[in-house]
Amino acid sequence: MTGTVAARLKELGIVLPPPAKVLGNYVPAALEGNIAIVNQAPVVDGKVKYAGRMGAEVSLAEGEDCARITAINVLGALSAVLDGNLDRVRRCVRLGGFIAVTPEFKDHGRVMNSASDLMVQVFGDKGRHSRFTVGVVSLPADLAMIIEGMFYID
Amino acid sequence: MTGTVAARLKELGIVLPPPAKVLGNYVPAALEGNIAIVNQAPVVDGKVKYAGRMGAEVSLAEGEDCARITAINVLGALSAVLDGNLDRVRRCVRLGGFIAVTPEFKDHGRVMNSASDLMVQVFGDKGRHSRFTVGVVSLPADLAMIIEGMFYID
Amino acid sequence: MTGTVAARLKELGIVLPPPAKVLGNYVPAALEGNIAIVNQAPVVDGKVKYAGRMGAEVSLAEGEDCARITAINVLGALSAVLDGNLDRVRRCVRLGGFIAVTPEFKDHGRVMNSASDLMVQVFGDKGRHSRFTVGVVSLPADLAMIIEGMFYID
Repeated sequence: MTGTVAARLKELGIVLPPPAKVLGNYVPAALEGNIAIVNQAPVVDGKVKYAGRMGAEVSLAEGEDCARITAINVLGALSAVLDGNLDRVRRCVRLGGFIAVTPEFKDHGRVMNSASDLMVQVFGDKGRHSRFTVGVVSLPADLAMIIEGMFYID
Repeated sequence: MTGTVAARLKELGIVLPPPAKVLGNYVPAALEGNIAIVNQAPVVDGKVKYAGRMGAEVSLAEGEDCARITAINVLGALSAVLDGNLDRVRRCVRLGGFIAVTPEFKDHGRVMNSASDLMVQVFGDKGRHSRFTVGVVSLPADLAMIIEGMFYID
Repeated sequence: MTGTVAARLKELGIVLPPPAKVLGNYVPAALEGNIAIVNQAPVVDGKVKYAGRMGAEVSLAEGEDCARITAINVLGALSAVLDGNLDRVRRCVRLGGFIAVTPEFKDHGRVMNSASDLMVQVFGDKGRHSRFTVGVVSLPADLAMIIEGMFYID
């Protein structure tokens, strides 16, 4: 990795992981023209770190960690498709958060804030995105969360 | 606001609100290159107007009003990021509707039609979009609905 | 239909259907600039083929068929908006899968693989996309699944 964003990540003490292998005919991140789409999960060293539902198996504090890890994985997969040069990111345009929840769970916003905060820590104003957060029944492999990012690339 | 779309809104008796403040490191609408992404909720004067689930706390008639209000908020946030000039919208490319529902709720399509109808009322054929509507467990702040719009901007 | 992709579809024995009529002010596929967004459902000859939830009314084998049919419908609607010339597709950038599920359902990934596999069968490496799959409470008209595709068009 090279550039201003790489230096910022170093300051923050964040090491971007290589993207986890996908189990199918798809890719961790797709770049075409000026648009990159990335989908990632709370996976660390190839293993699901947070499984189950927020409000039950996953606590709020764990949920916040989960969102941060997932957002870091988004940046890891994005970096890989940009050959390590995150300075090409002109904007984080959008984050979409899907959280597996119990019917009683209320803290979608607090969880997703961890992901939004990371984008602004890393990219500054270029990291300010439009976002949605929704509570779903379940996700593949019992994942607690998925984040989809859309980035504008120079 | 200026231009043809502003005149059309006036004919329809629609006053676009300024976007509600967001509670985090994100923005109501993000414009980069030719793409604008907007996420909005059924908020009026800074307060959630429709909370709870359609099929229970929110009736069908209320759901239709909810979708219309949310779509108006989408246009309000879009207008703000375009400095009030909605004539720059070449196309409403996509609407995504997330509705908090009970398992028995069946009227996703009727609810979302209120949002789709508004786009065509305001933009004419430029307002015809691809769309999805899904029933989810819950949304942040107990919102009954979120709409994400994607617009192509000249 | 003409071109290399049309020939590939013929080899695969796939006949793309015309898009099902939509019941509202929206369109099966929207193309603007280089971006096409398509939303489709498991509809055959104008009728819903798979209704209900995976894990209950829809078996895993049916779910895999459902995803394949839905993905074929995505290509049908895309083809229609490209005047039959799928060679203009530079990339399938993204697939999003919304599956109506029971709380116990675990096979989101296997179901969605049918859709991902189809894209790679048809487009080769251009068909490798970023993807998400989520389990939701319900979908319009009791549909078992919706797929949204995003394509980069030359």
